[in-house]
Amino acid sequence: MAQQERAIRTRKVILEAAATVFDEVGYEAATISEVLKRAGVTKGAFYFHFPSKGDLALGVLDQAVTTDGVEPQEVKLQEAVDTMLIMAYRLPREPVYSAALRLSVDRNSQRLFGTRWPDWISLLSALLGEAKERGEMYAYIDETQAARLLLSSWTGVQIVSEGLPDTYDLSTEVSRMLQLMLPSIAVPTVLSQLEVSADRSARLVAALPDDEAQDAAAPV
Amino acid sequence: MAQQERAIRTRKVILEAAATVFDEVGYEAATISEVLKRAGVTKGAFYFHFPSKGDLALGVLDQAVTTDGVEPQEVKLQEAVDTMLIMAYRLPREPVYSAALRLSVDRNSQRLFGTRWPDWISLLSALLGEAKERGEMYAYIDETQAARLLLSSWTGVQIVSEGLPDTYDLSTEVSRMLQLMLPSIAVPTVLSQLEVSADRSARLVAALPDDEAQDAAAPV
Repeated sequence: MAQQERAIRTRKVILEAAATVFDEVGYEAATISEVLKRAGVTKGAFYFHFPSKGDLALGVLDQAVTTDGVEPQEVKLQEAVDTMLIMAYRLPREPVYSAALRLSVDRNSQRLFGTRWPDWISLLSALLGEAKERGEMYAYIDETQAARLLLSSWTGVQIVSEGLPDTYDLSTEVSRMLQLMLPSIAVPTVLSQLEVSADRSARLVAALPDDEAQDAAAPV
Repeated sequence: MAQQERAIRTRKVILEAAATVFDEVGYEAATISEVLKRAGVTKGAFYFHFPSKGDLALGVLDQAVTTDGVEPQEVKLQEAVDTMLIMAYRLPREPVYSAALRLSVDRNSQRLFGTRWPDWISLLSALLGEAKERGEMYAYIDETQAARLLLSSWTGVQIVSEGLPDTYDLSTEVSRMLQLMLPSIAVPTVLSQLEVSADRSARLVAALPDDEAQDAAAPV
């Protein structure tokens, strides 16, 4: 393995260990020694990549916003839908995403590191803007407002369903949420073409390149 | 002032002080001595009402679910809308509600005290169920699912808008969220009668009885 490749892999292993710890106990209670133990790398390698706990949190948050697995679609709105469905499938399976959400919601780490919600809103807003230009969306819908409300609802569905005593499948819940909201956004001819089922998220993730798919299929 | 009345008032003053502290620093960092200082009551009175920090948290959570200010309406769905609008107006103005949300979202206090989300879902689901019986809602909409998604979206709108760098008015954001979701729930003849504007929340709160309205109008 080339030296650079090894460094990238080490960084990834450390970030996954950090995500698992942040996800389990939150930022405050997380300790570098616990992350170090789980990552199983040398102290030297560890501190080379992440000199402080804050660097670990920022590293996790930097991975939170992704469109991996979203393929170009004839209907642009489908790409926005796919972005949200894929994340709904991946979050319960990959600690980096649930850790990023926990860091974003926790007010102390929020104050220290901010959130990546503005990036999510920009990303969704750009997709909705293109959809609007193509006439897929009602012209009176503001794409930034709609992006903010979609992201907010997505986030709320994750937080509340995790806090309820019963178990809910996040893909199913997000699919239902989209089914309630999209008819107010997409014009009927486009709405009837959109695929919003929870099954779609699993299929999209299965089509990810090997190392990505491996992450996504990892047990919870 | 009768003794019982004084006891009720003392309890309220303590809970408000506790809510302010929980809202500011979270459950972990909150201390009884800080709450005691803010409440300005005697130690004896304090410990009589709330023997532990956990009792304070439970006391705050017990106040989180309310339909105060919701008047009977010809259209039952309007009562569900009013419930959500009133809470959107009150939360940024009354620490007890923002503290209850913070306690619900924080995973440590969530583990200790649970959340009141199941109660909110029951309450909204009951209103939606009545609306459905009257033909106000599409028959294929499951009222419990819809209640869960409305509550989740409401919660997500609060959490995300508070975490964004720009300032958003919660009533306006919740009003926009309802405008996106209600067309998928209410039949058209009912939808056109629903009043979902952010202004409505302020008007409903203004109509609350004196001591309630006083709380609601208190500065943030």
